[in-house]
Parts: sequence; C-alpha cells; structure tokens
Amino acid sequence: MRILGIDPGSRITGFGVIETRGQRHGDGAVCVAQGVIRTPRGEFPDRLGAIFSGIQELIQAHQPTQVAVENVFVSRNAASALKLGQARGAAIAAAVSLGLPVAEYAPRLVKQAIVGRGGADKAQVAHMVAMLLRFNEVLAEDAADALAVALCHQHTRQTLERMQNLQG
Amino acid sequence: MRILGIDPGSRITGFGVIETRGQRHGDGAVCVAQGVIRTPRGEFPDRLGAIFSGIQELIQAHQPTQVAVENVFVSRNAASALKLGQARGAAIAAAVSLGLPVAEYAPRLVKQAIVGRGGADKAQVAHMVAMLLRFNEVLAEDAADALAVALCHQHTRQTLERMQNLQG
Repeated sequence: MRILGIDPGSRITGFGVIETRGQRHGDGAVCVAQGVIRTPRGEFPDRLGAIFSGIQELIQAHQPTQVAVENVFVSRNAASALKLGQARGAAIAAAVSLGLPVAEYAPRLVKQAIVGRGGADKAQVAHMVAMLLRFNEVLAEDAADALAVALCHQHTRQTLERMQNLQG
Repeated sequence: MRILGIDPGSRITGFGVIETRGQRHGDGAVCVAQGVIRTPRGEFPDRLGAIFSGIQELIQAHQPTQVAVENVFVSRNAASALKLGQARGAAIAAAVSLGLPVAEYAPRLVKQAIVGRGGADKAQVAHMVAMLLRFNEVLAEDAADALAVALCHQHTRQTLERMQNLQG
C-alpha cells in the first residue's frame, strides 16, 4: 500500500508519500518522498493551478494507490476558510481526476492515531512522525502534517483489514 | 471572445458560455450554453471530482478562451466557506490546468456591470441577464449568476480595450 498524504494550504502545501511493507498492524511504513509545494506569489487562480499540477506530478512520479487529507472544519474566519477550501479543492481534484480514492480524517483522529491523544500539539505529532519513519533531520511542519495523515490512513486501513480477517 | 462564467457550489455549480461578436462596448453577446452541474450525493471528494470533470468537459465541448468566476469573500460561517472554497478550487483548477486564464470579480462589481447598481438583488440580475441574452424562458438561478459574471468579464474587457484604443 502506497499512500500520499496532503496538508493543503494556499501558500504552502505539505506532502508525504509512505509505503507499507506488510498488512499487519504495526508493520513499519517507510517514507518514499516528503516536502512542500510553495505556490507562486500573484494571482490566486495561478496558486490553485500550481497546487493542482504539483499534486498530479507527485502522483505520476510516486504512483500512490490511495490519498489521505486532513479534514479541517474550523478556521479563524470565513475568508481564510474560503482560501483554505480552494487549496483543498484543487489538491483533491488533482487526485480524484487521476482516479485515486481520497480519504478525509478529522485532525483529532490523526493526532489520536499518531500520538494516541486527540489533544496532542503539532510538535508532538511532528516528533512521533519522525520517530515512526526513522527521520534524523527535522521535517518541515507541513510535510510532517502530511505524513501524519498518511500514517493515520495506514493505521485505519490495517485496523479495518484485521477486523475483516477476524470475522472471516 | 468566448467566455465561460462559473458560479461554483458544492451541490450545484452554475455555468454559462457567451460569445461576443464585436469588440465595441455594447456589441451584443449570445449565449452558447448554460445550465448547472449537479454533484452526486455521497463523499465530498467525489463531488469535487464531478465539478472538476464537469468543467473540463464544458471547456472541451465549447472551447472558451477565457473564464470568469465570482469572488465571494463572505459566507455564513467558516464551515460553509470551506465547502464553497473547495468547490471553487476544483472549478478553477479545471480551467487553469487546461491553460485558460481565470478572472475573478467581486459580487458588487458583477451587479454593477449587469444592473448598474452594486446593491441589486438576485432577481434583478437574473432579469437583466435574460434581457441581455434574449432569453424567453426562466433561467436556473445558478446559471443566471454564471452568465452574469461572464457578461461582467465581457464588459470589463471591452472597456479595457476601448481605453487602450483611445490611448493608442
């Protein structure tokens, strides 16, 4: 299973691709690629175009089979929610238009999956992501968030498969 | 000049394609196509995919050279702004990824261009759109809004060209 996690933003969009070796819960994941897409200054539609084409290039380069995005429902205000929404829309459209399934996870669920506590802060999440994927260097915050949602998706899928195996 | 106007929404996205015959201000526009894209019930990413592919199909079918979208900055709340933003993001990404320039117009500017008054209500805008494009039937509200922003873009472009001609 190869998962692309995305943390969309109108200026910086984080991404992380992980590959899981086994089907069992706890089977390690490795990081295949991670980083951020920085959108150009200037017109907002060009920013959305950069996010869209950036995600499509990542998918073509790394061939993930699943995509996971953090689902944010709250925002400082309606204007910033609208901007964030547009960035998410461009990123998700890039994946869906290439035929990939996109799963959405609430931030609390991502933190619960990674740190074991829904109220964990960003630094704890970044620390656990680095531990789980055996990073020595410090990750960019948006890349860490993207890897966190990819890992959350991996855990969720493995749990579902384990439950199906128990039933079958 | 052939313009695609879009009024994005997570459930219903209005569209309208107009063609202008001349370059002079007041040269009539004709409606080439108009209607709405209804997104399927179910997962939100699938809705965004339907908006994205719907807009790309419209562009391929009608070959507009420019795209215009109403720029909304206010919303009832952050959650609805985020949904609307995602719909806009998917629609704009569809146009930008096909190489089309996308212009954004504030709602007041659209009303000013169509009705001559920034505070006009939706019914007045729909009425004027129907008059300008010689419709006999009643237009769907979202299609009328999409045609309004396309007409606003036409007016703006014609005014700019007239000013350039005066200077040159």
